[in-house]
Amino acid sequence: MKFNITKKSGNARIGKLNLKHGIIDTPSFMTVGTYGSVKSLTNNELLDCNAQIILCNAYHLMLRPDQKIIEKAGGLHKFMNWNKPILTDSGGYQVFSLSSQTKVSRDGVEFKSPLNGSKVFLSPEKSIEIQINLGSDIMMIFDECTPYPANKEQAKKSMELSLYWAELSHKANTSSMPLFGIVQGGMYSDLRETSLKELLKFNFDGYALGGLSVGEPSALRNDILQKITHKLPKDKPRYLMGVGKPKDIIYAVSQGIDMFDCVIPTRNARNGQLFTSSGILNIRNKQYESDLTPIDENCSCFTCKNYSRAYIRHLDKCNDILAGRLMSIHNVYFYQEFMRKIRFAIESNTLDDLIKNVEHNYIE
Amino acid sequence: MKFNITKKSGNARIGKLNLKHGIIDTPSFMTVGTYGSVKSLTNNELLDCNAQIILCNAYHLMLRPDQKIIEKAGGLHKFMNWNKPILTDSGGYQVFSLSSQTKVSRDGVEFKSPLNGSKVFLSPEKSIEIQINLGSDIMMIFDECTPYPANKEQAKKSMELSLYWAELSHKANTSSMPLFGIVQGGMYSDLRETSLKELLKFNFDGYALGGLSVGEPSALRNDILQKITHKLPKDKPRYLMGVGKPKDIIYAVSQGIDMFDCVIPTRNARNGQLFTSSGILNIRNKQYESDLTPIDENCSCFTCKNYSRAYIRHLDKCNDILAGRLMSIHNVYFYQEFMRKIRFAIESNTLDDLIKNVEHNYIE
Repeated sequence: MKFNITKKSGNARIGKLNLKHGIIDTPSFMTVGTYGSVKSLTNNELLDCNAQIILCNAYHLMLRPDQKIIEKAGGLHKFMNWNKPILTDSGGYQVFSLSSQTKVSRDGVEFKSPLNGSKVFLSPEKSIEIQINLGSDIMMIFDECTPYPANKEQAKKSMELSLYWAELSHKANTSSMPLFGIVQGGMYSDLRETSLKELLKFNFDGYALGGLSVGEPSALRNDILQKITHKLPKDKPRYLMGVGKPKDIIYAVSQGIDMFDCVIPTRNARNGQLFTSSGILNIRNKQYESDLTPIDENCSCFTCKNYSRAYIRHLDKCNDILAGRLMSIHNVYFYQEFMRKIRFAIESNTLDDLIKNVEHNYIE
Repeated sequence: MKFNITKKSGNARIGKLNLKHGIIDTPSFMTVGTYGSVKSLTNNELLDCNAQIILCNAYHLMLRPDQKIIEKAGGLHKFMNWNKPILTDSGGYQVFSLSSQTKVSRDGVEFKSPLNGSKVFLSPEKSIEIQINLGSDIMMIFDECTPYPANKEQAKKSMELSLYWAELSHKANTSSMPLFGIVQGGMYSDLRETSLKELLKFNFDGYALGGLSVGEPSALRNDILQKITHKLPKDKPRYLMGVGKPKDIIYAVSQGIDMFDCVIPTRNARNGQLFTSSGILNIRNKQYESDLTPIDENCSCFTCKNYSRAYIRHLDKCNDILAGRLMSIHNVYFYQEFMRKIRFAIESNTLDDLIKNVEHNYIE
């Protein structure tokens, strides 16, 4: 893995991240393909939407299909026929947000499979083993996602467990595959600093901020971002996990973040919520019933070049899955286009103008 | 509309049907796009599957979206962005199979909208008006679909009502757009002959056989087909409505049928049932869990060129709508390829061999 920063403007940076399956431009937004697919879309469509990298989840893929099937296929890239980079999440976040009856010990987490109720054990060692077998381009350490709200005592204890697991994850990586550390510490910037300081000892290939976008107000998150981001190593990729909305992304970029992931573009698309150059549009609103214009006149995605709001709304009313698909294409394209505009703004030192424009269109 | 038969072999024929939006090769299978979309597929994908014509339903499109919206778009082709031929069904079949509280009179049918419970009236005049406004390439007369079983008295009465509606439909066609008559008469070949004889007076552009594939045994349907098909005008397209399975299609072709439509390829695809060169495959069977071969080694569709059975089964398990979509692509392609093989067999006088092959692979 190589990371070259080609331009800086304030704290914001443009870079090229060279991974096993290709080069990605940063700041980069990773579309989420939890189970080894971006729901409803083929890989060709992802490429047409200019997606350079996707995120898959070790937790989900451990539960379904059997790990051995993906190994037999020759890894996740071959199984899903995607030849570009994949970042795999370690499962830490999902264990705590999606599983029931979790029993946490120093060794790892035992939980009940939400699929069939069977007992499953996930540990740093196990998570890294799965990620190695998936053939990930970037692996994440196994951590505990500190919930919000958490008092300082809780946040400290959780952060310390994550640090221990970071060490175990680091040891478990017997491969030469890139592994990112994850800074925890809840909403306490001093805990975040401690977390970072300790993580640096393992010389990870990149550093992520975890435990954000878990229900806290944007202002609180932005405060943490402002205090910690510039302290992350300057020559390594910085990844803000689970964020987010256009406004939140561009703020984080201005603080020096390079990578993002979020289910918003795809999940919201399937619910009729579309991102446009003039804000959010909900296709289910009556006003679009006979609107023969595209979702966004300024968009060049496949959907906008071929279909009208009225037609997509009609498909949605008819429960035709083509609706969710066409809207997913639009939103995935929109996010990639948004990142391209961000990179262009950094290149041309006009990021502040773009921030104002985004804040104007996206009130939330 | 022009129809040229280029080759005959026994009763089977190959032809070119020249319609407003393009030429179709017969025998032809029309993929069903009830509401102005073939569920889950874009028009580009339909073209990649070699679809030359699709069937849409006047009944469904009358109920949703508002007819005025399609008119405002400039017709159904523009609304759905499909530039190839569309045959529209008149709504007769749907009124009787999908609506509740139908009140039939000589003038037409009053029924309760299954969407919102409001009273709707559909008549031959109204159906033709809708089909003209949709901009159909081939319109169908409004008829009553005789149920199965029906005694001779019932079948006769129903057939006579359909004849009256055929006359009204014919009168209502103030356009120059092609209109097909529909032969009814249930399972009584003498009633079918009467129906045909009367319909011929209106010199329709093509003739369909309706009221088949409504629950009767294949042997009974085939008996009717054998008795009536060769009596349909030789120089006009012959359309067997709602059929069907590969075995039934090829038998009908051998009797002289030129056109077909059926929801089987798309509906069954969404339920995991796939057509292959060696018979039917159900992707949900456990045996495909780690099967990394394509659905059909002999198939050149997008799905078979890019994805394995194990991956598609995994998507289906995860309720990813990409599964239904990839399987729809395969089945739509399979049916078009099947029709191409049929045409080739007629061309080379080997239809009997193909029939034996199909009967061997498709027991049902």
